[in-house]
Amino acid sequence: MNAPLAGLRVVEVSAFIAAPLGGMTLAQLGAEVIRIDPLGGNIDAKRWPLAPGGDSIYWASLNKGKRSVTLALDTPEGQAIATELITAPGPGGGILLTNLPTRGWMSDAALRARRPDLITMRLTGNHDGSGAVDYTVNCASGFPIATGANADPVNHVLPAWDIAAGLYLALGILAAERTRQRDGQGQEISLALNDVMLATVGNLGYIADVQVNGAVREPIGNHLYGAFGRDFATKDGRRAMLVAISNRQWRAIGKATGLTEKLAMVGPLMDVDMATEGGRYAARHAIAAVLEPWFAARNLTEVRAALDGSGVLWGPYQDFGQLVTEDARCSTSNPMFADVEQPGVGRVLTPRIPLSLGGTPAQPPAAAPLMGQDTGEVLAQVLGYDQARLSALRDAGVVTAGV
Amino acid sequence: MNAPLAGLRVVEVSAFIAAPLGGMTLAQLGAEVIRIDPLGGNIDAKRWPLAPGGDSIYWASLNKGKRSVTLALDTPEGQAIATELITAPGPGGGILLTNLPTRGWMSDAALRARRPDLITMRLTGNHDGSGAVDYTVNCASGFPIATGANADPVNHVLPAWDIAAGLYLALGILAAERTRQRDGQGQEISLALNDVMLATVGNLGYIADVQVNGAVREPIGNHLYGAFGRDFATKDGRRAMLVAISNRQWRAIGKATGLTEKLAMVGPLMDVDMATEGGRYAARHAIAAVLEPWFAARNLTEVRAALDGSGVLWGPYQDFGQLVTEDARCSTSNPMFADVEQPGVGRVLTPRIPLSLGGTPAQPPAAAPLMGQDTGEVLAQVLGYDQARLSALRDAGVVTAGV
Repeated sequence: MNAPLAGLRVVEVSAFIAAPLGGMTLAQLGAEVIRIDPLGGNIDAKRWPLAPGGDSIYWASLNKGKRSVTLALDTPEGQAIATELITAPGPGGGILLTNLPTRGWMSDAALRARRPDLITMRLTGNHDGSGAVDYTVNCASGFPIATGANADPVNHVLPAWDIAAGLYLALGILAAERTRQRDGQGQEISLALNDVMLATVGNLGYIADVQVNGAVREPIGNHLYGAFGRDFATKDGRRAMLVAISNRQWRAIGKATGLTEKLAMVGPLMDVDMATEGGRYAARHAIAAVLEPWFAARNLTEVRAALDGSGVLWGPYQDFGQLVTEDARCSTSNPMFADVEQPGVGRVLTPRIPLSLGGTPAQPPAAAPLMGQDTGEVLAQVLGYDQARLSALRDAGVVTAGV
Repeated sequence: MNAPLAGLRVVEVSAFIAAPLGGMTLAQLGAEVIRIDPLGGNIDAKRWPLAPGGDSIYWASLNKGKRSVTLALDTPEGQAIATELITAPGPGGGILLTNLPTRGWMSDAALRARRPDLITMRLTGNHDGSGAVDYTVNCASGFPIATGANADPVNHVLPAWDIAAGLYLALGILAAERTRQRDGQGQEISLALNDVMLATVGNLGYIADVQVNGAVREPIGNHLYGAFGRDFATKDGRRAMLVAISNRQWRAIGKATGLTEKLAMVGPLMDVDMATEGGRYAARHAIAAVLEPWFAARNLTEVRAALDGSGVLWGPYQDFGQLVTEDARCSTSNPMFADVEQPGVGRVLTPRIPLSLGGTPAQPPAAAPLMGQDTGEVLAQVLGYDQARLSALRDAGVVTAGV
């Protein structure tokens, strides 16, 4: 079978994380994704971290497997070519993904006039179209105040709202494309980053907890809410996260540590039913007090030897360096990864999409293009431009790289 | 036009966050999603937070818009009925979503023998099939050690890996269903929660930064990496997040606060080019020192008046209570929300999917079912069971609720 999205062509006019991740996800499922940037790149072209030669690792990591076209988007000629690419005929074409303001040539009306079955997917900050980014969405979400051990807000470092938004963007395009195959009609879809946050806060029950119980979740450090789970320090200065949600996982902790009898004493001590998640949550400090000496007496290697394969749900804390150098799952022994030469960056461990599709070939881990490298090839293949026309565009300064 | 996924039937056998979110997302796009649980519910049926009457707000929030069937899944009769539901004929049927161990009757081979074009989507912990949950995935990711102001790990409270995994699950099903429409063939797909983390760490450039630069991101508190951004305390004890990525956003800060001249002095003071993101990142502490008194002299209301509409990218910190009670975006004035009566919980502000599809009717915000409420109706509609057969199943204890 062909790749799931073989034959689909998506034009992306984007920057930063969410929209590029959405396009990359579609490329990883087999779509042809053409990212159009202004000459020299968009505002994210040099975003940190940078490789020693100055190329952006950030940009390369979020644009893997795409084709890169650069055009003088501030000129009518550049805008006309971009419009042609977005609205080019063909059953899998006519799909635009963008997080940029959509006025003038990029407006839905202007594009749809040329291809009525167009699918346009637009990411905004707020639902009223006003601006917001992951940081200004996150501060409003409630999570930073509930994170850490006290009421001082702690921002997440993972751009979680951007990640979720990128996946919603890919989903929205697939849903609209399924509709177009069925009904022959395109549509305009929008997604607000702040709505991704609000929907998620609702989906996790925080809104209802406030409305029904008047409960505002307090910061509880690294404890797990509503069950037993916490981090523990080991003898060699490492830390491990230990979790018990099911009763079977709870019993496994006692068995693996030899502390079953002491842990059983916590129930009467704290007047809780230790056979319930809620009981173990209520007694979490007493449970932790019993377990702390066990971890403190062992190196991480010894902890691992005692807990791996025991049915205990646990994991070591790792910094990014330890993840890359110590964790076998983060290596080519994991079929999701391959070592890929990334132009401008070097040979790096590169993931494909985390989905493993048993029946269709996975797109292997791919490098990102150099900025603009596919310009001439895309204009020739998709729009039929010949070499004379490409040369004239280059002479006029409408295209520079890749022709 | 009909809803994008009208005609699709997905059977979900699941618990907790990721798989239920995947199924709920498909339901929000118009699929019929039937969640099958053991009699009385699965392990997440009473997960905290609870409503005053004991019903799980958590469960209700993650299972909106689904149909709920409960069966004695520990009996051959219950397993046979679940198998029939999963493999029932029809072009949109034959789709299973699960995060439970898939042995015996739930094995791919057993199900596919009855419907060769089946699509099975299975969430595991690690790619080798071993167990992992958001907490034990997150500790290994590098993010907790990079979060906060020092090297002590800080767990996120948002179950970010579960959220991303849920959206990947929905995407994988849509991709496989598109393939089946095209080629007539189903397939088995799997997704490991830990691979969602690893792919994301790679997609954000952290792996390459370690491999190419030997750089391990240090905790920098609430600062933004590679540009200027930080939280500031206001006169009335609130906090605000302030961000400048583009030069235009940076200039807007000077203009709105009246501090343009002072901020311009930071460049020569710190020997950086203030017209670059990297320069402003390097000078972040000096910039913050200039801005701190401005925020400290103003209440949040005054900050809002000065910054809203000024082109400054900012937002207030809110706890979950403030989000629900103070933020107009988190109310029915946002078209994503409606007040919905949730049985067992009460009338609560409920989101639909955050995607706004212009051409197809949105599934309005929906309540979750009560556990098992649709059992009889689903068995009648999908499998054609008559009342006599349902009564016999009830007498045999194979079904209890909803018949």
